[in-house]
Amino acid sequence: MKARVFVTLKPGVLDPQGKAIHHALEGLGFDGVNEVRAGKLIELDLADGTGDDAIESMCRKLLANTVIENFRIERLP
Amino acid sequence: MKARVFVTLKPGVLDPQGKAIHHALEGLGFDGVNEVRAGKLIELDLADGTGDDAIESMCRKLLANTVIENFRIERLP
Repeated sequence: MKARVFVTLKPGVLDPQGKAIHHALEGLGFDGVNEVRAGKLIELDLADGTGDDAIESMCRKLLANTVIENFRIERLP
Repeated sequence: MKARVFVTLKPGVLDPQGKAIHHALEGLGFDGVNEVRAGKLIELDLADGTGDDAIESMCRKLLANTVIENFRIERLP
């Protein structure tokens, strides 16, 4: 079973990596970019039958820093 | 207009970050994790009317290293 975890910074948290990407895009001539936010994507290959609770626990304990980050779990068939 | 870009390592490319996450999950007692792959998620806030071509061009020129990475673009309404 596969699952994807998307980790993004909470709104209001400064994102220097996103700012750097934004700046670089402008330098390459891409106009019309208002904002860039950088996050993480973690693809998990799990044993069948792994519950949502287990995946959420992985996120809370390791994959995301819930003080400054949100996470979203997507299970793939 | 918002768009998300998912950047993942191509199959076969070594992923030490994913391996480290996998090892840490096992250390925390999470069994049944077969593989972990780490990728990037980039959220773009773009001017309305920005075409798919422009977003793909951003990916090829800056956001992804197409020698070792794949990218997928998702436009949000």
